[in-house]
Amino acid sequence: MTLEAKQAVETADVVVGYKTYVKLVESIIKLGTEVFSGTMGKEVERAKVAVAKALEGKKVVVISSGDPGVYGMAGLVLEVADLENAKIPAVIIPGVTSATAAAARLGAPLVTDFAVISLSDLLTPWSLIETRLHAAAKADFVIVLYNPQSVGRTEPLAQAYQILLQYRKPGTPVGIVRQVGRKGEETSITTLKDLLSCEVDMATTIIVGNSTTRIVSKRMVTPRGYDL
Amino acid sequence: MTLEAKQAVETADVVVGYKTYVKLVESIIKLGTEVFSGTMGKEVERAKVAVAKALEGKKVVVISSGDPGVYGMAGLVLEVADLENAKIPAVIIPGVTSATAAAARLGAPLVTDFAVISLSDLLTPWSLIETRLHAAAKADFVIVLYNPQSVGRTEPLAQAYQILLQYRKPGTPVGIVRQVGRKGEETSITTLKDLLSCEVDMATTIIVGNSTTRIVSKRMVTPRGYDL
Repeated sequence: MTLEAKQAVETADVVVGYKTYVKLVESIIKLGTEVFSGTMGKEVERAKVAVAKALEGKKVVVISSGDPGVYGMAGLVLEVADLENAKIPAVIIPGVTSATAAAARLGAPLVTDFAVISLSDLLTPWSLIETRLHAAAKADFVIVLYNPQSVGRTEPLAQAYQILLQYRKPGTPVGIVRQVGRKGEETSITTLKDLLSCEVDMATTIIVGNSTTRIVSKRMVTPRGYDL
Repeated sequence: MTLEAKQAVETADVVVGYKTYVKLVESIIKLGTEVFSGTMGKEVERAKVAVAKALEGKKVVVISSGDPGVYGMAGLVLEVADLENAKIPAVIIPGVTSATAAAARLGAPLVTDFAVISLSDLLTPWSLIETRLHAAAKADFVIVLYNPQSVGRTEPLAQAYQILLQYRKPGTPVGIVRQVGRKGEETSITTLKDLLSCEVDMATTIIVGNSTTRIVSKRMVTPRGYDL
C-alpha cells in the first residue's frame, strides 16, 4: 500500500468497497467511519453510493485491490459521476497493480515491453480477448494474465494456452502468483507446457515470458539487454 | 511510494541509484548510510557495487523510480548476482509504475487490456518496437508509451505516430503526463492527431486510448463495459 492510499483511508468519512477488499484495510479505518461493503457484481451500485455520499460533502474513499485504474473501480466512479452530472473533485490514487507485484515475487519478468490481458469474458467479448492473445504472443510481448479462471470457468485459460503455444516454446518460463501481497500468498515458476496442471484461480496472476525470458538463480528474468 | 519501500530506504546500510532518483529519497536516508549515486548509462556498474556490498553483509537498497521491475534495475541486479555466483537474498519491492500513476492523473484509461511499450531503441531493436506498435494498435489495446523521446531523438515518436494512425481514429484521446508524482508534474489530454505538437521528453508517459476510450467530464476513460 502507498503512503497516500493509507492516509486517504485513515481520514475517510465513508469507505466503499467489495467486502474482501474492505476487510484488508479494516484495521486502519477510523471509528465512526461509514462503511459500505458489498458483493461482487454490485459495482455499479457501490459507485452510485460513493457519488451520492460525495455530493453530501463527505470524504468518500472507494477501495480497489491493487491499482484502481487496472480493471478496478476508477473508471466506473467517473462514469457514474458524469452520468449523474455530479461535480465532485474525484482524485484517483494509483497503487501497485498485480502485474508488477507478481513480477517482483517472481524476479524481473517485465523489464521489457509487456501486455496485460484479462481472461474474464464477463465484460469483454471472448473473440476480442483471443485477438489480443494472438497479437501479444506474436509480437513477443511478455504477457500478464489477470482473472485467469474460476471454479466452473476453466475454458478461457485452456484456450489461451493453445494460442500461446502457437507462438512460444513449450519450455517458456511461466510465473504463477496467488494472492499476491495477501495472506496465503503462493509463488511458483513453471513452463508453458505445464501451465494447465498448476493451481490457478481468480486471485492468481500469471506471467508468460517472451522468447528471451529465462531462469536466473531460480528466478524468472527477462533480460533488459545490457551488455554484461 | 509504498510503506514497504519507505521502510527499506530508511533502514538501509547502503543506497545505490541513478542520482536523480537518489535525490528523490534523500530526506529519508538515515545519517551514516553509504550512498552510491551515478549517471545514466552506468547501470551495470551500479548493479555490481550493489552486489559487492551485499556480499559484505550489508543491507543494500537499489533505487528505481516507479516500479523497479518495469524498465528498472531489478533484472540487472539479479543477472549480475547470478553471473558473480553471489548468493544474496535479494527482495524486489514493487512500486507504482508510471503507466498506472499517469493513468490516475488522466482519469481511468487503463481499465481494460493494455500494452506497455518503450520507444527507446538503446536496448531493443527498432524493428521489434515497430512490430509491437503494429500488434498492439491492431488488437485494440490501450497503449502506454515509455521513454517517448529526448532532445535529439524525436524520430521514434514520429514513427510511432504514423503507425498508430493506421489503426486509430485521429480523434482518439491521448493522455500526456510529465514528471508524474514529482515536482513540476504536468498533465494534458489531447487527440492522436495532435500528439506531435505536444511537449514530450524522456520523463513523459503517453497513454493512447483504444477504440472505446472517451472523454468523461474532462477525463480520459476507457469504459470497462458495465451496464449503466
